[in-house]
Amino acid sequence: MKEFEETLKKIEGELLSLPFPETPNNLYDPLRYFLTLGGKRIRPVLTLMATELFGKDPRSSINAALAVEVFHNFSLIHDDIMDAAPLRRNKQTVHERWGDNVAILSGDVLLVKAYQLLAKQDPEHLAELLHLFNTTAVEVCEGQQMDMDFESRSDVRIPEYIEMIRLKTSVLLGCALEMGAIVADASSEDKENLYSFGQHIGIAFQIQDDILDLFADPEKFGKQVGGDVIANKKTLLNLKAWEMAGSFKNELSMLASEQNLEHKVQRTREIYEELNVRTVCESMMEEYYTIAMHALDQIKQPKEKKAPLVQLADYLMNREH
Amino acid sequence: MKEFEETLKKIEGELLSLPFPETPNNLYDPLRYFLTLGGKRIRPVLTLMATELFGKDPRSSINAALAVEVFHNFSLIHDDIMDAAPLRRNKQTVHERWGDNVAILSGDVLLVKAYQLLAKQDPEHLAELLHLFNTTAVEVCEGQQMDMDFESRSDVRIPEYIEMIRLKTSVLLGCALEMGAIVADASSEDKENLYSFGQHIGIAFQIQDDILDLFADPEKFGKQVGGDVIANKKTLLNLKAWEMAGSFKNELSMLASEQNLEHKVQRTREIYEELNVRTVCESMMEEYYTIAMHALDQIKQPKEKKAPLVQLADYLMNREH
Repeated sequence: MKEFEETLKKIEGELLSLPFPETPNNLYDPLRYFLTLGGKRIRPVLTLMATELFGKDPRSSINAALAVEVFHNFSLIHDDIMDAAPLRRNKQTVHERWGDNVAILSGDVLLVKAYQLLAKQDPEHLAELLHLFNTTAVEVCEGQQMDMDFESRSDVRIPEYIEMIRLKTSVLLGCALEMGAIVADASSEDKENLYSFGQHIGIAFQIQDDILDLFADPEKFGKQVGGDVIANKKTLLNLKAWEMAGSFKNELSMLASEQNLEHKVQRTREIYEELNVRTVCESMMEEYYTIAMHALDQIKQPKEKKAPLVQLADYLMNREH
Repeated sequence: MKEFEETLKKIEGELLSLPFPETPNNLYDPLRYFLTLGGKRIRPVLTLMATELFGKDPRSSINAALAVEVFHNFSLIHDDIMDAAPLRRNKQTVHERWGDNVAILSGDVLLVKAYQLLAKQDPEHLAELLHLFNTTAVEVCEGQQMDMDFESRSDVRIPEYIEMIRLKTSVLLGCALEMGAIVADASSEDKENLYSFGQHIGIAFQIQDDILDLFADPEKFGKQVGGDVIANKKTLLNLKAWEMAGSFKNELSMLASEQNLEHKVQRTREIYEELNVRTVCESMMEEYYTIAMHALDQIKQPKEKKAPLVQLADYLMNREH
């Protein structure tokens, strides 16, 4: 993973040296602040790895890679307003520190910044990159809207939920990879397979996220275990549990308004184990992972060139953080 | 102006038939709603006129024209949240009707939609169009941030104010025109002059807006006369008045907290007349108008081809609505 870490360092450096003007400082200080909060920077790494997979210098897709990461950060700033989230990576969110108006506007300018980075790619690939990026950006907004709509709905079905996480988080992984492949002039078939790999890894990753929320080792988990349960958030576990609840329906219903939060989390975990929810969700996760790996297999490049992507996928799927 | 009206009708039709998906309807209903509220559609008309000025079929820049108008509407939706404005064109604003979260997110998707429209232009001009559009979008955000910052400042100087209105409203007019010229393969010099024409007309127009707020004929004016005065808004008139206030300083100061609004507006108007503020602002407006017309003169096209732009500028500068 040494090479991976070097790539990461390069991306981090580029992000921190994005040339934001000094003024208006209420517009740009929040962005300078937010981009230093860190993050795994998975998306830009995917773009560069994809370019390298097809034998081209990964530096040739650096601006597309940064565009994806900057877009991701824009979406976090706006999502945090909508979710009224006080913290992001244990630091104050932009709207919490500067107010909603500043968070709206500096998010807007960050979205435009993503397009400015994308526009630095060679004109030869620009139209194709822009088309994919636009489609993805619309989908991410649609996913966020579905997620917000789910809060007030009690009839959310699992396929809808999967569609929501596909749009909200997975298409951007597919996009990150495909953009790297576009810059490397990969074939249409290889681009589709790589996109599919990213999208399905993304869904598997999100399902794992849902599982870890309740079943992670508290020692290793970066945030409060059971946060989704406490917030009565609709997750795959929650929807699956309701689908299979049987005689536990009443108790699950009552737990939603349980005031003793420790008991709420513990009892929910017990019921989910009883109902086999964890195992069922894990096997769904593995299904998506398998589809992802199959898509990667189809790509017409030697196996050893795919190793970094396989490693990254394994790293994503074996985390407790 | 018959041709102009036909162009307008075409743009209106295109805007109303933008293909927004049915769902999520909380994301797209607000956009369908907002785009039917109307507006003068000056910006897209400018793009098409610019293309025609250089002898090319204006249909060839229709997507750039729509991109500018869609961008303008995105900025209105987000500005309305930040300004907590309940009404836009006498109808409920998006955030008032659907809440802030929906207004943030549907604004975001509308900004992406602008890029989708722009991406439909021929690949040959795409990089140049995108570069101009991005720069302009950033500037518009900067202008909005300056405007918000001014609210809590008491030391705003007139050159700063002019810079704010240049960024917030005028650069988009310059951009609209230059995009039309780019599509028509105009020379660099002609493009610059056309941009300058738009930008200076924009500033003149905005100054007129400030003047009309207090001095319009209430019969013809679409909104409440004196609205800016009542809100103690910093406008060119207000800043000029303070600059020249002399012995009126105390009275102007007291008027800021005057509860009798009719008296507040009337007395402010009297003091401004006494101080000659209106005349001074009108001559500033005329200066910008003259610069605009001079820039238009420089463009290497026969005078009769510029007539529609002159007419449109005159229409903008002779309104009481």
